[in-house]
Amino acid sequence: MPSIARATVNTVTPTDITPKEDFLAIEEPLEIRLEYGPEQPRSTRPLSVTMRTPGEDEDLVRGFLLTEGIVQSPADILSVSTLSENVVLARLSPAAQFDMQRLDRHFYTTSSCGVCGKTSIEAVLAGGHCKSRAPRKINIDKEVIYSLPETLRRQQSAFDQTGGIHASALFDINGNLLALREDVGRHNALDKLIGHISSENATLFEESVLLLSGRASFELLQKAAVAGIPLVCAVGAPSSLAVETARAFGITLIGFLRGERFNMYTD
Amino acid sequence: MPSIARATVNTVTPTDITPKEDFLAIEEPLEIRLEYGPEQPRSTRPLSVTMRTPGEDEDLVRGFLLTEGIVQSPADILSVSTLSENVVLARLSPAAQFDMQRLDRHFYTTSSCGVCGKTSIEAVLAGGHCKSRAPRKINIDKEVIYSLPETLRRQQSAFDQTGGIHASALFDINGNLLALREDVGRHNALDKLIGHISSENATLFEESVLLLSGRASFELLQKAAVAGIPLVCAVGAPSSLAVETARAFGITLIGFLRGERFNMYTD
Repeated sequence: MPSIARATVNTVTPTDITPKEDFLAIEEPLEIRLEYGPEQPRSTRPLSVTMRTPGEDEDLVRGFLLTEGIVQSPADILSVSTLSENVVLARLSPAAQFDMQRLDRHFYTTSSCGVCGKTSIEAVLAGGHCKSRAPRKINIDKEVIYSLPETLRRQQSAFDQTGGIHASALFDINGNLLALREDVGRHNALDKLIGHISSENATLFEESVLLLSGRASFELLQKAAVAGIPLVCAVGAPSSLAVETARAFGITLIGFLRGERFNMYTD
Repeated sequence: MPSIARATVNTVTPTDITPKEDFLAIEEPLEIRLEYGPEQPRSTRPLSVTMRTPGEDEDLVRGFLLTEGIVQSPADILSVSTLSENVVLARLSPAAQFDMQRLDRHFYTTSSCGVCGKTSIEAVLAGGHCKSRAPRKINIDKEVIYSLPETLRRQQSAFDQTGGIHASALFDINGNLLALREDVGRHNALDKLIGHISSENATLFEESVLLLSGRASFELLQKAAVAGIPLVCAVGAPSSLAVETARAFGITLIGFLRGERFNMYTD
């Protein structure tokens, strides 16, 4: 499925109404089904539906299962296969630890959170699926940090055409782009990125910088913590709970990264 | 609870690292519990947890119950009361129609969606909780439309200070601001707005314009459709499914509303 749709729109200005060809970011639901359990015949259940931009659906599912704590490691996922345009089946390893009750609770408590910010962070910690409570610090030149948004913009194809897509990108400490994923949902863009890297070489995260094209929320920091990323940079503002989550996990958090200037929210 | 937190950050430039006082948009989870059923003792269950900016929690809950199709009208909600800082209880009217099975399914299918965009729109239509499939068309001057973002910016207190908050605003056809709500989550900002207006005077929606400070997604158009809003303007880009949803419900959708220029995605 394509990620971008053509549309004819009317551009209205004080003097004219001009029809033009425009591009829209495609948003479609993706249903994730889960096959699990140690025995034959194995059980199957619907897991969730997320509104996403089609493309890299397998990466999305792998990242989602990992960062939402449904599996503990990439090896717990045997395969992800496309059943139809908007339905995928994830087959878990028979050995995968899988807590059905926790999963059902999960859908009442988006992002594993509890009833206060502190509980949310503790729930993520208690989930036990974080690589490290205090990721290794990395040394990176501030000139390299300044350069990241421009590198991202040069690579962001879909964004330039639609103006409607969020991006997540992973860089090495020299500012080289390792991977870039885009989606109408910023959590999906990050899940696609984490799903892709974790199935190739999950140790890359420990030496990498994550760049978010927009704002930094609790959910995005939680996902970065699960992956074990030590430095997160956002072009936009962080929320209060994003800052608290970064501190709790030893992640360095940078916001408002624009031109030769940024804000550091953690030490 | 406040909506904004103070934080000390370090601003990094090529020549300096300067500590400064900054403001963060507060993000905290809100647990919604539901009391329902015709008989005493009535049943209580957890409904959902949403990450939101504290403030106008009661509006948020009323809007959420309405736009997610959990209740059919504002009269179905007897009361919304705060149990603790981040927990609220919504008491439904004993007469409220309430489909527990549909609700459970709901949490696997965010925003009542199915497995393709078309199914998503049909699910919203079939929900039967939309004011009208084709809202009444309203006549509005394009000069009025140009003026909306500037009126919003003048009123947006939290946004100016944190740069991290989404806004939803309702205007009359002369460009007068009727109500404005802000939140770290754009769906929350819209639910707060709809919850507020629906408990005051739900007929206002039919004669009003909704302005979204960011992009327009399926979820936001779905909520506007349930409220019966005829014209939706977004400062950012719409997604493909937002455009399709607007067309299906007879909503006029405007995007990229900036300065004296906008794009019309529907007739």
